[in-house]
Amino acid sequence: MTDSRTLANAIRALAMDAVEAANSGHPGMPMGMADAATALFTRHLKFDASRPDWADRDRFILSAGHGSMLLYALLHLTGYARPTIDDIRNFRQFGSPCAGHPENFELAGAETTTGPLGQGLAMSVGMAMAERHLNAVFGDDLVDHHTWVIAGDGCLMEGISQEAIGLAGHLKLGRLNVLWDDNRISIDGATSLSTSEDMAKRFDAAGWHVIACDGLDFASVDAALTAAKADPRPSLIACRTVIGFGAPTKAGTSGSHGSPLGAKEIGGAREALGWTAPAFEIPADIKAEWEAAGRRGATDRAAWEARLAASPHAEDFAQRMAGTVPAAALAGIDAHIAALIASPQKIATRKASELALAAINPLAPILLGGSADLTGSNNTRTKDQTTFSADDYAGRYVYYGIREFGMAAAMNGLALHGGVIPYGGTFLVFSDYMRNAIRLGALSHARVIHVLTHDSIGLGEDGPTHQPVEHLLSLRAIPNLAVYRPADTVETAEAWALALADATRPSVLALSRQNLPQLRLTAGENLTARGGYRLRAATVPRAVVFLATGSEVEIAIAAAALLEAEGFGCDVVSMPCWEAFDAQDAAYRADILGGDVLRVSVEAGVTLGWQRYTGTDGLNFGVDSFGASAPIDVLYDHFGLTGPKIAASVKARLQRNS
Amino acid sequence: MTDSRTLANAIRALAMDAVEAANSGHPGMPMGMADAATALFTRHLKFDASRPDWADRDRFILSAGHGSMLLYALLHLTGYARPTIDDIRNFRQFGSPCAGHPENFELAGAETTTGPLGQGLAMSVGMAMAERHLNAVFGDDLVDHHTWVIAGDGCLMEGISQEAIGLAGHLKLGRLNVLWDDNRISIDGATSLSTSEDMAKRFDAAGWHVIACDGLDFASVDAALTAAKADPRPSLIACRTVIGFGAPTKAGTSGSHGSPLGAKEIGGAREALGWTAPAFEIPADIKAEWEAAGRRGATDRAAWEARLAASPHAEDFAQRMAGTVPAAALAGIDAHIAALIASPQKIATRKASELALAAINPLAPILLGGSADLTGSNNTRTKDQTTFSADDYAGRYVYYGIREFGMAAAMNGLALHGGVIPYGGTFLVFSDYMRNAIRLGALSHARVIHVLTHDSIGLGEDGPTHQPVEHLLSLRAIPNLAVYRPADTVETAEAWALALADATRPSVLALSRQNLPQLRLTAGENLTARGGYRLRAATVPRAVVFLATGSEVEIAIAAAALLEAEGFGCDVVSMPCWEAFDAQDAAYRADILGGDVLRVSVEAGVTLGWQRYTGTDGLNFGVDSFGASAPIDVLYDHFGLTGPKIAASVKARLQRNS
Repeated sequence: MTDSRTLANAIRALAMDAVEAANSGHPGMPMGMADAATALFTRHLKFDASRPDWADRDRFILSAGHGSMLLYALLHLTGYARPTIDDIRNFRQFGSPCAGHPENFELAGAETTTGPLGQGLAMSVGMAMAERHLNAVFGDDLVDHHTWVIAGDGCLMEGISQEAIGLAGHLKLGRLNVLWDDNRISIDGATSLSTSEDMAKRFDAAGWHVIACDGLDFASVDAALTAAKADPRPSLIACRTVIGFGAPTKAGTSGSHGSPLGAKEIGGAREALGWTAPAFEIPADIKAEWEAAGRRGATDRAAWEARLAASPHAEDFAQRMAGTVPAAALAGIDAHIAALIASPQKIATRKASELALAAINPLAPILLGGSADLTGSNNTRTKDQTTFSADDYAGRYVYYGIREFGMAAAMNGLALHGGVIPYGGTFLVFSDYMRNAIRLGALSHARVIHVLTHDSIGLGEDGPTHQPVEHLLSLRAIPNLAVYRPADTVETAEAWALALADATRPSVLALSRQNLPQLRLTAGENLTARGGYRLRAATVPRAVVFLATGSEVEIAIAAAALLEAEGFGCDVVSMPCWEAFDAQDAAYRADILGGDVLRVSVEAGVTLGWQRYTGTDGLNFGVDSFGASAPIDVLYDHFGLTGPKIAASVKARLQRNS
Repeated sequence: MTDSRTLANAIRALAMDAVEAANSGHPGMPMGMADAATALFTRHLKFDASRPDWADRDRFILSAGHGSMLLYALLHLTGYARPTIDDIRNFRQFGSPCAGHPENFELAGAETTTGPLGQGLAMSVGMAMAERHLNAVFGDDLVDHHTWVIAGDGCLMEGISQEAIGLAGHLKLGRLNVLWDDNRISIDGATSLSTSEDMAKRFDAAGWHVIACDGLDFASVDAALTAAKADPRPSLIACRTVIGFGAPTKAGTSGSHGSPLGAKEIGGAREALGWTAPAFEIPADIKAEWEAAGRRGATDRAAWEARLAASPHAEDFAQRMAGTVPAAALAGIDAHIAALIASPQKIATRKASELALAAINPLAPILLGGSADLTGSNNTRTKDQTTFSADDYAGRYVYYGIREFGMAAAMNGLALHGGVIPYGGTFLVFSDYMRNAIRLGALSHARVIHVLTHDSIGLGEDGPTHQPVEHLLSLRAIPNLAVYRPADTVETAEAWALALADATRPSVLALSRQNLPQLRLTAGENLTARGGYRLRAATVPRAVVFLATGSEVEIAIAAAALLEAEGFGCDVVSMPCWEAFDAQDAAYRADILGGDVLRVSVEAGVTLGWQRYTGTDGLNFGVDSFGASAPIDVLYDHFGLTGPKIAASVKARLQRNS
């Protein structure tokens, strides 16, 4: 039997070697946390290395994602198919699944993409929520696992960590256990340079169980993890460690954090650790013992599969974990749209979103809604939803509190856990607070639906702090994110259908505070899926194509009517989703954009970006400054966003051009 | 003598009346905190209503900015010139200084712009830092004031609050005192829906003094504020209050939070409070007593002015508070640029920034630098700087810790306090974490310099979580923010000179990790001030204008050289600052953009936005997806950002066009 320190040294050796070969990376954290991770993976984590997709596995999230070699070493050693030793040799090289930071979309076994500090911890809260929710729905037989996290000082200094631990404590997520790599070193030096917090007291204040252990001592960690599992509260396990443990001169210093140790230091570390195998080689007996640990869960997994096969919920559970949106719910949206066509409504698109949700939610138990304390403004809760709480994890509506970033990250975790499709609301302007989580969701292929209301100066009196102007553009700039700004009730319902169907990326629904007339009055295909489409065709020879979104489509139509009355034909194109429009074929796009005519964009936000469609010879109406505090009509007039003002400017340009 | 409750009721009445007249706003918080605010403004806050610009006044920050009527009422009642009662009647109307949320640029007496929750608290940490720093420099005679904050549950649930209180506790900012409006109500209902934190324990864990009082009892608050001032730690004063106090049916409910109470409820409140004066009228005796409170500080202020006049530091202090950048420092930049011209350097622009700072910092004590734990990567610390700490507030370098959002907000507070120009570093990708603070600084006209390094896929192996691609565009979209992406050492120094001189807006310097050749080799004007300029002119008839920024200017030059060798004349325009370029006159811009030629943008980020300059007929080279983990050269080749690849594409287009 190999001693635990030697098992841990296999992690240390791989971390040193891979970082050295890549000539970049972070050896210090894997070396410091190797013993603790060994205790977790050989004694506590429920997993089967041969089946990384086992639905009831424990989730392990490396929130301190820069220590990615810790994860890669663990996956390799325990016998996952990937990474192979060659993958590890190619650490941080193009195409290797061993990227600089763990990437869930490159490597089974990486549950999340981490690196931006604090977010792994916040995502783990979502994972733990998903576990309790699914447990409440499907019972202990099918869902009964833990969520484990390794977090560093960086994770715990980021503000999002407070949102995460506050939410986890409130929800009593006792199956969430966080190992804190308490090494007292950050990049700039000792953590005492910048922090004096009593971490135990802080977590205790949030309703957590806190336990300390010697993170370099297997038995001490083992006992702490056992205690953590036994406690009904979420647990913080403070693991006192030494960054770069084993490195003769750099251990305990920031010098081991983020750079290769160098050949000499590695040699010294090997000597100190008693590790004699050549670089990238793991002695067979040590590998065998690790692989045995990787098979620990096989029996449990087989038993679970037998229970699943025998369960009356088998099919339902499989559909949930596959992320299938029930056909009935999609049909419900269709029926809702048909009803809107039959009986048009002039309502805010945030209210239209609520109506769409009311058609979907009762038929799609996979949806888990919520808001960052703006439920009545975001219109995110439907009547059928009960509250998700520590008393009732079966509830389907989450009061996330005033924690936008924590909410967005938790939703990423919910989506990546599987079995739920999360949506959550706040004001569009506060997408700023959660922006990196939206981005990380896009990078991670997480199906999360962000319901972002009060989407322009149209919110009125709350003023410039609450009026988004640059946010639509800045969200459109994020890769792999679909941004919808529907113009009416029908487009809103269509956007919901598309967002739900989009299994590999998040969506944003930007929704108005103010009422908007229903513009789509005939039944037919989901035109929002086209991204942009001709809503009104010119009735006299076409001179202008208006391109507008959301609440400004109505205004473009008004301007077009005035111009047509003067003989200038105008198409009005509604462009609820740039990403979808750009994905149409060239002929479609060219037809919609209308060739050699004056193209005019109208959107109550920055005009930057619209030149992509209007060219530099077009006209762009928008808001290129901060907004102001005033009633909505005053603001639209002040910023020149009225039918008459736009028509007059367009007419002047047409006359100048002719 | 009017009793304190009656004084407080004047606030309540104005808040109810203004919100009712505006038909929007937040009466609940002013009504709940009126007594506490009365204690603060009549007994503790050091101010002179006739001189809102008194440098040594206490700073009062309404972090719960939605309760803006509390501030407006206090300023009006105590006799500030604005707001007048007519301003208050015009609450939330266009042009009124009484905006929906407090706006420092509209109203003297509003120290900051607040509304986005948590940030007022975090800005107040910067204010308190500025006070201690200037005290250390100028002594007790000139700088000796407190910073007071009113924060709500929303502020304290936002993650940034943890960053703020962690930093304040670590820095032992004893002159910072926060009144927590502990009303146990948030928008969605009882705070117990979403939080179970023990707030006192949490603040205690961060090194704060915590004291509780009855927020509806003047004497209780008064005693607590006295205790807060006496304690050497920053203080949290937990004021137990009732939201909407006085409203007969809505008090204590979220119904009083964010909507007009309605005539009937207001009538009931007036009756309950014993307030009989008509709407918007304050009885003369009550107004007189409030105005006396507004003059409390006049004697202190006069004494302070006398001390200042007698001080040997008078002129220096005045220059500091005026935000004057010493002429010697600006000359130092010029000398540094001259030295670069004489002896060109191939270094990363982050290193070039360090060299510029080394030329500036010793000559400009007004600068206060820092980093969010990336000092050695951001190159933000110069040798002359000592550490700002609880042991030495005279230090000029702040270890902000892993708290990007908290840093950015604190820098806003430092800038708005006056007497310092803050700069701080992190990676460009993590501008996401602090994005709303960057925005709020832009809205607030705060001169803050954000040093954002590792500005593209050029950072290499750390991979897509750390590689900004959409960030340049999304920052350029923020109004009143200057975004610089210098191409070499000289442009970096020029950008520093411009950022320092820009007193009414923040700046971003986006800087490379990788080394870049010096491209500017002749002395002359600050060309970065032009935003875009012709760096290389075509040597054969011009067919192409390259537009590039930062690290891609070198690549555009390489492509141009290849094309020129084949007879296609190419200008290369360096565009380090779009905002500055757009501010040039039309003739200059037209000349630089080159008229009817093929315009080609080259920037290692999203191409969206560049069509504003290239038109839709141009070519755009960039990165329209997430990056990847690999060495830099592999990535630039993969994304097609090399001279030969770009030249080949451009040539193909030219041949197709001809």
